[in-house]
Amino acid sequence: MSVIVVGAGLAGLTTARRLVAAGHEVVVLEARDRVGGRVRGGELAGHPVEVGGTWLGEGHAMMYTLVEELGLATFRTWNDAGSVLLELGGRQSRLAPHKGATPRLNPFALADLAQGLLRFERMATRVDLERPWATPGARRLDGQTFESWIRRNLRTSAGRAYFHTACEAVFAADACDLSLLHALFYARSNADFETLLAVDHGAQQDRVVGGSVRVAEGLAASLGDRVRLGAVVRSVRQGADEVAVELRDGSRLTGERLVVAIPPTLAGRLDYDPLLPSWRDQLTQKLPAGSVVKAFAAYPTPFWRGEGLNGQAATDRGPVKVTFDVSPPDAEVGMLLGFIEGGDARHWVRLSARDRRRSFLDSLVRYFGPAAGDPIDYLEQDWTAEEFSRGCYGAHFAPGVWTAYGEALRPPVGRIHWAGAEYAVHWNGYMEGAVRSGEATADEVLRALA
Amino acid sequence: MSVIVVGAGLAGLTTARRLVAAGHEVVVLEARDRVGGRVRGGELAGHPVEVGGTWLGEGHAMMYTLVEELGLATFRTWNDAGSVLLELGGRQSRLAPHKGATPRLNPFALADLAQGLLRFERMATRVDLERPWATPGARRLDGQTFESWIRRNLRTSAGRAYFHTACEAVFAADACDLSLLHALFYARSNADFETLLAVDHGAQQDRVVGGSVRVAEGLAASLGDRVRLGAVVRSVRQGADEVAVELRDGSRLTGERLVVAIPPTLAGRLDYDPLLPSWRDQLTQKLPAGSVVKAFAAYPTPFWRGEGLNGQAATDRGPVKVTFDVSPPDAEVGMLLGFIEGGDARHWVRLSARDRRRSFLDSLVRYFGPAAGDPIDYLEQDWTAEEFSRGCYGAHFAPGVWTAYGEALRPPVGRIHWAGAEYAVHWNGYMEGAVRSGEATADEVLRALA
Repeated sequence: MSVIVVGAGLAGLTTARRLVAAGHEVVVLEARDRVGGRVRGGELAGHPVEVGGTWLGEGHAMMYTLVEELGLATFRTWNDAGSVLLELGGRQSRLAPHKGATPRLNPFALADLAQGLLRFERMATRVDLERPWATPGARRLDGQTFESWIRRNLRTSAGRAYFHTACEAVFAADACDLSLLHALFYARSNADFETLLAVDHGAQQDRVVGGSVRVAEGLAASLGDRVRLGAVVRSVRQGADEVAVELRDGSRLTGERLVVAIPPTLAGRLDYDPLLPSWRDQLTQKLPAGSVVKAFAAYPTPFWRGEGLNGQAATDRGPVKVTFDVSPPDAEVGMLLGFIEGGDARHWVRLSARDRRRSFLDSLVRYFGPAAGDPIDYLEQDWTAEEFSRGCYGAHFAPGVWTAYGEALRPPVGRIHWAGAEYAVHWNGYMEGAVRSGEATADEVLRALA
Repeated sequence: MSVIVVGAGLAGLTTARRLVAAGHEVVVLEARDRVGGRVRGGELAGHPVEVGGTWLGEGHAMMYTLVEELGLATFRTWNDAGSVLLELGGRQSRLAPHKGATPRLNPFALADLAQGLLRFERMATRVDLERPWATPGARRLDGQTFESWIRRNLRTSAGRAYFHTACEAVFAADACDLSLLHALFYARSNADFETLLAVDHGAQQDRVVGGSVRVAEGLAASLGDRVRLGAVVRSVRQGADEVAVELRDGSRLTGERLVVAIPPTLAGRLDYDPLLPSWRDQLTQKLPAGSVVKAFAAYPTPFWRGEGLNGQAATDRGPVKVTFDVSPPDAEVGMLLGFIEGGDARHWVRLSARDRRRSFLDSLVRYFGPAAGDPIDYLEQDWTAEEFSRGCYGAHFAPGVWTAYGEALRPPVGRIHWAGAEYAVHWNGYMEGAVRSGEATADEVLRALA
């Protein structure tokens, strides 16, 4: 019995692998000329970097298992021998890089921030992960923006700035774009807010040697010619006994089940016949992707390490508000990654190539000194401009969406099933979530085929 | 010089008419087998009714002119000899049907409501209609939901319920779906909140004899065979000297300019080559359509008129929260229209046909007595299920969208121009807005062709 999978990202590939293992005939249709989706490899100064999804974090059990199964290895994100640089309200401070560290702010700001984080975490523990809309007080939590909550609960400008920067770093969206319920759901789905921000024992703990794209490539290799690149699906037609997809080149495939493993905003653009139920279509109308650019600079050495810094910066002043040391394991060269997110990204991408590079490096110089202004290599990846992503990291839920449309997110529609990091109960939005969603969807398809 | 217009709603037809008058070659491609878009005619007990956009209101100058030019006539919405029925928190009251009437609530609720309305109107007067994102305090206004504002500013449950019902009636969306800035913009764009809700001197003042669809049909008739029905546009390709569209049937047309006069959520689903700028695509990812069903019941007579009621009800208890008397001018039969909106619509559309009808009539019986339970005809129109609308009345802006993406709404992209009620500065969301947008876009195209 045959299954068509649309999208060769981690979710689609994982789904396909499990279905193949169960003896089914599977074809994976990938619009791009590469696999991986929002996971993509790049090269900087001759070394592999991740221009898309990057890290494995504590609790990402399936990803670690997959890495091992595929004969790959991980290495720790550089986090030692230096401080995180924190810049809020124009004030720079350094803080020791262990989980739970709090910035050296004035006592009022510190108390404010600590209390805000505590309140947030306490609320997050009450979220129903399987059914966020069934969380106690869901309507109230979903009726307001995360921004409204920050304004009401954080009293100091430094406390608010910290939350704003953290929100952009975690969601690639501004705090006003998200409902409070979604912010809480996402934190809870990924253990807690602190884990999302942390390196050691956090979401940025490890990287895959050779780049995370190796995982996608390994999965694709095991699927062989079941994966078809450059196959852009345009329409889906469900019949009584089969489901047919039509590609942009006019060709047509049929299967017994279809797994749509592409981001919601793309899933909503396919032509479905019969139409998807209106509530499913309106859901995808309301799941926009975030705005993020990743940019990289390489240097002869990781010079910041010698200056007591670990390459991590977090600041409320754009365009680069978060940075990481992404040097290769042996630190042959020094490499810094910076995120440009939300409103900063929307402005930055309209600059000339020359101004983009300069603006990126200017930020790095502010954090790491003049040596950061003279890289040996530079690389950028604008995820909002990608036809087959339309933004990253993932979809975010505006106020009202979880409570009104959440129930329509995961259930299959006839022969059509859904997979992707957005559908994950645990580790939503991460590579781990994509893999878990793929496994869950494969199980769903297997039950349907049984 | 030739222009292709996508969409034969009022905006597309108006654009086309003006371009033809200026001597240009124009073709209008309409996906449906009828013109009018979100304006559509229906028949109830042998009389025409509007199952889509219905009323002309005070200030809708271009629509009144158009009606006259096309040899059509208007008649007043029935508003005399009876009271509006208001039901909040289970308490029914009747109020005299003139603009500015306030419900007979307890003094606390009344003061609360009056103060809330005053505050809202005062804020709305400060909105910059051309550039809502440039409104003083825009970030703060756009950072919160309309719901948050209601909760903070209305102290009584009756006051809140009034705002919630009014929001659903005006936007076909829940108060948590909208940013406060959008609610203010929309009220200001349509004179004020009271005008949006009012019949006499308000947005529901007049109807077109024969139905509003006559306006679209009249425009289309004047365009003759320039309007092609059943022409579903799939992709748009911009070249150096022309723009080409490909239809679902594989045929291809080229022109010098293209006007996309379909709702934003549909405009975002076309395949553009080259891709639209990322900020334009992300904008349409964030402009979902509202949820609304219109249902009608006809009776031998407008019996409610004899009982001191004018057929208008507003209540906080679903599924039908707002009703109007839509009897024909001579009142040969009595006809009631009810709106089912937002969350009520999403649940209601999943009921069986029989249960939908019953649930609709049950609401009418509650307002107008047992005679409402025995209609001679019934009609319903679910706008969320329409492939070429995907919801009604129009798009709404969630928090953060106006301030982050507002600038991308109206400017053309190369040879592609935009038109529709969502693009209007004045009377946004109404037939008047669609026509004004069409005129403005035609001017923009004429300047580009000059």
